[in-house]
Amino acid sequence: MRHAIQDSYPARFAHCHGCGPANRDGWRLKSYVEGDEVVLRHTPAPAYTGGVPDHAYGGLLASLLDCHGAASATAFAYRAAGGEVGDGGALPRFVSGTLTVVYRRPTPMGVELVVRGRLAEAKGRKVTVDLELSADGEVCVTGQMIALEIPAEY
Amino acid sequence: MRHAIQDSYPARFAHCHGCGPANRDGWRLKSYVEGDEVVLRHTPAPAYTGGVPDHAYGGLLASLLDCHGAASATAFAYRAAGGEVGDGGALPRFVSGTLTVVYRRPTPMGVELVVRGRLAEAKGRKVTVDLELSADGEVCVTGQMIALEIPAEY
Repeated sequence: MRHAIQDSYPARFAHCHGCGPANRDGWRLKSYVEGDEVVLRHTPAPAYTGGVPDHAYGGLLASLLDCHGAASATAFAYRAAGGEVGDGGALPRFVSGTLTVVYRRPTPMGVELVVRGRLAEAKGRKVTVDLELSADGEVCVTGQMIALEIPAEY
Repeated sequence: MRHAIQDSYPARFAHCHGCGPANRDGWRLKSYVEGDEVVLRHTPAPAYTGGVPDHAYGGLLASLLDCHGAASATAFAYRAAGGEVGDGGALPRFVSGTLTVVYRRPTPMGVELVVRGRLAEAKGRKVTVDLELSADGEVCVTGQMIALEIPAEY
Protein backbone atom coordinates (compact mmCIF):
# COMPACT_ATOMS: atom_id res chain seq x y z
CA MET A 1 0.00 0.00 0.00
CA ARG A 2 1.54 3.27 -1.12
CA HIS A 3 1.42 6.16 1.26
CA ALA A 4 1.23 9.78 0.09
CA ILE A 5 3.68 12.15 1.77
CA GLN A 6 0.97 14.77 2.25
CA ASP A 7 -1.20 12.28 4.16
CA SER A 8 1.47 12.19 6.87
CA TYR A 9 1.78 15.97 7.27
CA PRO A 10 1.01 17.18 10.80
CA ALA A 11 -2.67 18.20 10.97
CA ARG A 12 -1.90 21.85 11.66
CA PHE A 13 0.04 22.07 8.37
CA ALA A 14 -2.58 20.28 6.23
CA HIS A 15 -4.45 23.31 4.83
CA CYS A 16 -2.48 23.91 1.63
CA HIS A 17 -4.67 24.66 -1.40
CA GLY A 18 -2.41 22.56 -3.58
CA CYS A 19 -1.84 19.49 -1.44
CA GLY A 20 -3.41 19.79 2.01
CA PRO A 21 -5.71 16.87 2.84
CA ALA A 22 -7.71 19.26 5.06
CA ASN A 23 -8.39 21.81 2.28
CA ARG A 24 -11.73 20.67 0.84
CA ASP A 25 -11.64 23.29 -1.91
CA GLY A 26 -8.09 22.48 -2.98
CA TRP A 27 -6.53 20.00 -5.38
CA ARG A 28 -5.27 17.51 -2.74
CA LEU A 29 -2.18 16.66 -4.77
CA LYS A 30 -0.35 13.50 -3.66
CA SER A 31 3.39 12.83 -3.88
CA TYR A 32 4.80 9.32 -3.54
CA VAL A 33 8.29 7.94 -2.98
CA GLU A 34 9.37 5.71 -5.88
CA GLY A 35 12.89 4.43 -5.31
CA ASP A 36 15.28 7.39 -5.32
CA GLU A 37 12.64 9.74 -6.71
CA VAL A 38 9.43 11.32 -5.48
CA VAL A 39 6.63 11.33 -8.05
CA LEU A 40 3.39 13.31 -8.43
CA ARG A 41 0.78 12.64 -11.10
CA HIS A 42 -1.95 15.16 -11.91
CA THR A 43 -4.28 15.89 -14.80
CA PRO A 44 -5.29 19.57 -14.72
CA ALA A 45 -9.00 20.34 -14.78
CA PRO A 46 -10.22 21.95 -18.05
CA ALA A 47 -10.30 25.45 -16.51
CA TYR A 48 -6.51 25.51 -16.06
CA THR A 49 -5.58 26.57 -19.55
CA GLY A 50 -2.78 28.95 -20.41
CA GLY A 51 -3.02 31.80 -22.92
CA VAL A 52 -4.19 29.38 -25.60
CA PRO A 53 -6.80 26.70 -24.86
CA ASP A 54 -4.61 23.66 -25.62
CA HIS A 55 -1.75 24.62 -23.30
CA ALA A 56 -1.72 24.29 -19.51
CA TYR A 57 -1.48 27.35 -17.24
CA GLY A 58 2.06 28.26 -16.18
CA GLY A 59 0.87 29.19 -12.71
CA LEU A 60 -0.61 25.73 -12.20
CA LEU A 61 2.65 24.14 -13.35
CA ALA A 62 4.57 26.31 -10.88
CA SER A 63 2.07 25.25 -8.19
CA LEU A 64 2.68 21.57 -8.92
CA LEU A 65 6.43 22.12 -8.57
CA ASP A 66 5.88 24.12 -5.39
CA CYS A 67 3.86 21.48 -3.55
CA HIS A 68 5.84 18.58 -4.92
CA GLY A 69 9.17 20.24 -4.17
CA ALA A 70 8.28 20.68 -0.51
CA ALA A 71 6.89 17.13 -0.28
CA SER A 72 10.01 15.71 -1.91
CA ALA A 73 12.22 17.61 0.52
CA THR A 74 10.23 16.11 3.38
CA ALA A 75 10.71 12.57 2.10
CA PHE A 76 14.43 13.02 1.42
CA ALA A 77 15.04 14.53 4.86
CA TYR A 78 13.01 11.82 6.58
CA ARG A 79 14.92 9.10 4.76
CA ALA A 80 18.25 10.73 5.66
CA ALA A 81 17.17 10.53 9.30
CA GLY A 82 16.52 6.79 8.95
CA GLY A 83 12.76 6.82 8.36
CA GLU A 84 10.57 5.95 5.42
CA VAL A 85 7.28 7.65 4.48
CA GLY A 86 4.39 5.50 5.75
CA ASP A 87 6.26 4.04 8.73
CA GLY A 88 3.96 5.92 11.10
CA GLY A 89 6.53 8.44 12.26
CA ALA A 90 5.91 12.20 12.25
CA LEU A 91 7.35 13.76 9.10
CA PRO A 92 9.27 17.02 9.17
CA ARG A 93 7.42 19.85 7.40
CA PHE A 94 9.22 21.91 4.80
CA VAL A 95 8.15 25.19 3.28
CA SER A 96 9.14 26.81 0.01
CA GLY A 97 12.29 28.90 0.18
CA THR A 98 13.16 29.56 -3.47
CA LEU A 99 11.35 28.05 -6.43
CA THR A 100 12.74 28.25 -9.96
CA VAL A 101 10.58 27.21 -12.90
CA VAL A 102 11.92 26.88 -16.46
CA TYR A 103 9.18 26.58 -19.10
CA ARG A 104 10.92 24.60 -21.85
CA ARG A 105 7.99 23.94 -24.17
CA PRO A 106 4.20 24.29 -23.97
CA THR A 107 2.58 21.72 -21.67
CA PRO A 108 -0.44 20.11 -23.35
CA MET A 109 -3.90 19.93 -21.76
CA GLY A 110 -5.88 16.71 -21.47
CA VAL A 111 -3.01 14.44 -20.45
CA GLU A 112 -1.64 13.30 -17.11
CA LEU A 113 1.37 15.32 -16.02
CA VAL A 114 4.17 13.54 -14.18
CA VAL A 115 6.44 15.52 -11.85
CA ARG A 116 9.64 13.91 -10.58
CA GLY A 117 11.70 15.20 -7.67
CA ARG A 118 15.32 14.19 -7.14
CA LEU A 119 17.54 15.11 -4.22
CA ALA A 120 20.19 17.65 -5.22
CA GLU A 121 21.53 18.56 -1.78
CA ALA A 122 20.59 18.30 1.89
CA LYS A 123 22.36 20.70 4.22
CA GLY A 124 21.08 21.34 7.72
CA ARG A 125 17.45 22.43 7.51
CA LYS A 126 17.79 23.29 3.79
CA VAL A 127 16.99 20.63 1.18
CA THR A 128 17.38 21.30 -2.55
CA VAL A 129 15.27 19.27 -4.97
CA ASP A 130 15.62 19.11 -8.75
CA LEU A 131 12.23 18.94 -10.47
CA GLU A 132 11.07 17.79 -13.88
CA LEU A 133 7.53 17.86 -15.31
CA SER A 134 6.66 15.65 -18.29
CA ALA A 135 3.62 15.12 -20.49
CA ASP A 136 3.41 12.12 -22.81
CA GLY A 137 7.04 11.32 -21.98
CA GLU A 138 8.33 14.75 -23.05
CA VAL A 139 9.91 17.08 -20.53
CA CYS A 140 7.99 20.39 -20.64
CA VAL A 141 9.15 22.12 -17.46
CA THR A 142 12.19 21.79 -15.23
CA GLY A 143 12.90 23.53 -11.98
CA GLN A 144 14.41 23.54 -8.57
CA MET A 145 13.06 23.99 -5.06
CA ILE A 146 15.16 25.09 -2.12
CA ALA A 147 12.95 24.04 0.78
CA LEU A 148 13.40 24.98 4.43
CA GLU A 149 12.39 22.83 7.38
CA ILE A 150 9.98 24.47 9.81
CA PRO A 151 11.49 24.26 13.31
CA ALA A 152 9.68 21.62 15.39
CA GLU A 153 8.76 24.20 18.04
CA TYR A 154 6.88 26.35 15.49
CA MET B 1 -9.72 55.61 -17.42
CA ARG B 2 -7.12 52.97 -16.64
CA HIS B 3 -6.71 50.12 -19.08
CA ALA B 4 -5.64 46.63 -17.97
CA ILE B 5 -2.86 45.05 -20.02
CA GLN B 6 -4.72 41.74 -20.19
CA ASP B 7 -7.77 43.44 -21.71
CA SER B 8 -5.63 44.24 -24.77
CA TYR B 9 -4.29 40.72 -25.29
CA PRO B 10 -5.15 39.27 -28.70
CA ALA B 11 -8.36 37.21 -28.38
CA ARG B 12 -6.66 33.92 -29.25
CA PHE B 13 -4.29 34.35 -26.27
CA ALA B 14 -6.99 35.34 -23.75
CA HIS B 15 -7.68 31.93 -22.15
CA CYS B 16 -5.20 32.00 -19.27
CA HIS B 17 -6.63 30.71 -15.99
CA GLY B 18 -4.80 33.42 -14.11
CA CYS B 19 -5.47 36.48 -16.22
CA GLY B 20 -7.34 35.65 -19.43
CA PRO B 21 -10.50 37.75 -19.88
CA ALA B 22 -11.97 34.82 -21.85
CA ASN B 23 -11.49 32.25 -19.05
CA ARG B 24 -14.78 32.39 -17.15
CA ASP B 25 -13.54 29.96 -14.48
CA GLY B 26 -10.27 31.81 -13.90
CA TRP B 27 -9.20 34.69 -11.71
CA ARG B 28 -9.11 37.39 -14.42
CA LEU B 29 -6.16 39.16 -12.83
CA LYS B 30 -5.52 42.69 -14.11
CA SER B 31 -2.15 44.43 -14.39
CA TYR B 32 -1.90 48.21 -14.86
CA VAL B 33 0.91 50.53 -15.87
CA GLU B 34 1.69 53.04 -13.08
CA GLY B 35 4.56 55.28 -14.13
CA ASP B 36 7.70 53.16 -14.50
CA GLU B 37 6.07 50.16 -12.81
CA VAL B 38 3.34 47.70 -13.63
CA VAL B 39 1.05 46.90 -10.69
CA LEU B 40 -1.36 44.07 -9.90
CA ARG B 41 -3.66 43.99 -6.88
CA HIS B 42 -5.38 40.80 -5.76
CA THR B 43 -6.98 39.48 -2.59
CA PRO B 44 -6.86 35.67 -2.61
CA ALA B 45 -10.14 33.84 -2.03
CA PRO B 46 -10.37 32.02 1.34
CA ALA B 47 -9.64 28.61 -0.25
CA TYR B 48 -6.10 29.66 -1.23
CA THR B 49 -4.41 28.99 2.09
CA GLY B 50 -0.94 27.56 2.48
CA GLY B 51 0.02 24.82 4.94
CA VAL B 52 -1.43 26.84 7.81
CA PRO B 53 -4.79 28.62 7.50
CA ASP B 54 -3.50 32.17 8.02
CA HIS B 55 -0.85 32.06 5.30
CA ALA B 56 -1.43 32.30 1.54
CA TYR B 57 -0.62 29.40 -0.79
CA GLY B 58 2.85 29.55 -2.36
CA GLY B 59 1.51 28.23 -5.65
CA LEU B 60 -0.96 31.10 -5.88
CA LEU B 61 1.81 33.61 -5.15
CA ALA B 62 3.91 32.04 -7.92
CA SER B 63 0.87 32.26 -10.20
CA LEU B 64 0.45 35.99 -9.50
CA LEU B 65 4.12 36.54 -10.37
CA ASP B 66 3.75 34.40 -13.48
CA CYS B 67 0.80 36.31 -14.97
CA HIS B 68 2.01 39.69 -13.83
CA GLY B 69 5.54 39.06 -15.06
CA ALA B 70 4.32 38.29 -18.57
CA ALA B 71 1.93 41.26 -18.53
CA SER B 72 4.69 43.58 -17.32
CA ALA B 73 7.00 42.36 -20.08
CA THR B 74 4.28 43.15 -22.61
CA ALA B 75 3.88 46.70 -21.32
CA PHE B 76 7.62 47.39 -21.18
CA ALA B 77 8.16 46.04 -24.70
CA TYR B 78 5.20 47.99 -26.06
CA ARG B 79 6.45 51.19 -24.47
CA ALA B 80 9.96 50.59 -25.85
CA ALA B 81 8.36 50.40 -29.31
CA GLY B 82 6.69 53.78 -28.78
CA GLY B 83 3.24 52.65 -27.68
CA GLU B 84 1.32 52.90 -24.44
CA VAL B 85 -1.17 50.36 -23.10
CA GLY B 86 -4.69 51.51 -23.91
CA ASP B 87 -3.77 53.40 -27.09
CA GLY B 88 -5.72 50.88 -29.16
CA GLY B 89 -2.70 49.18 -30.71
CA ALA B 90 -2.19 45.41 -30.68
CA LEU B 91 0.07 44.42 -27.81
CA PRO B 92 2.84 41.88 -28.22
CA ARG B 93 2.17 38.67 -26.26
CA PHE B 94 4.84 37.29 -23.98
CA VAL B 95 5.00 33.86 -22.40
CA SER B 96 6.87 32.67 -19.33
CA GLY B 97 10.44 31.61 -19.98
CA THR B 98 11.97 31.32 -16.51
CA LEU B 99 10.22 32.28 -13.28
CA THR B 100 12.08 32.58 -9.99
CA VAL B 101 10.14 33.00 -6.74
CA VAL B 102 11.80 33.78 -3.40
CA TYR B 103 9.49 33.32 -0.41
CA ARG B 104 10.93 35.78 2.12
CA ARG B 105 8.29 35.60 4.82
CA PRO B 106 4.78 34.13 5.15
CA THR B 107 2.17 36.06 3.15
CA PRO B 108 -0.93 36.75 5.26
CA MET B 109 -4.47 35.87 4.19
CA GLY B 110 -7.33 38.36 4.24
CA VAL B 111 -5.43 41.35 2.87
CA GLU B 112 -4.92 42.77 -0.60
CA LEU B 113 -1.63 41.71 -2.15
CA VAL B 114 0.24 44.20 -4.32
CA VAL B 115 2.63 42.93 -6.98
CA ARG B 116 5.01 45.38 -8.66
CA GLY B 117 6.94 44.68 -11.84
CA ARG B 118 9.99 46.70 -12.85
CA LEU B 119 11.96 46.43 -16.06
CA ALA B 120 15.34 44.79 -15.49
CA GLU B 121 16.41 44.24 -19.11
CA ALA B 122 14.95 44.14 -22.61
CA LYS B 123 17.00 42.31 -25.21
CA GLY B 124 15.50 41.22 -28.51
CA ARG B 125 12.40 39.15 -27.82
CA LYS B 126 13.50 38.51 -24.20
CA VAL B 127 12.32 40.86 -21.44
CA THR B 128 13.40 40.41 -17.82
CA VAL B 129 11.13 41.80 -15.09
CA ASP B 130 11.93 42.12 -11.39
CA LEU B 131 8.92 41.33 -9.22
CA GLU B 132 7.97 42.16 -5.65
CA LEU B 133 4.84 41.09 -3.75
CA SER B 134 3.78 43.00 -0.64
CA ALA B 135 1.05 42.67 1.97
CA ASP B 136 0.29 45.51 4.36
CA GLY B 137 3.38 47.32 3.06
CA GLU B 138 5.75 44.44 3.87
CA VAL B 139 7.58 42.63 1.10
CA CYS B 140 6.75 38.92 1.41
CA VAL B 141 7.92 37.52 -1.95
CA THR B 142 10.39 38.69 -4.55
CA GLY B 143 11.12 37.16 -7.91
CA GLN B 144 12.08 37.53 -11.51
CA MET B 145 10.45 36.63 -14.79
CA ILE B 146 12.35 36.14 -18.02
CA ALA B 147 9.55 36.43 -20.57
CA LEU B 148 9.74 35.58 -24.25
CA GLU B 149 7.75 37.27 -27.00
CA ILE B 150 5.61 34.96 -29.11
CA PRO B 151 6.49 35.52 -32.78
CA ALA B 152 3.72 37.47 -34.53
CA GLU B 153 3.27 34.65 -37.07
CA TYR B 154 2.47 32.11 -34.33
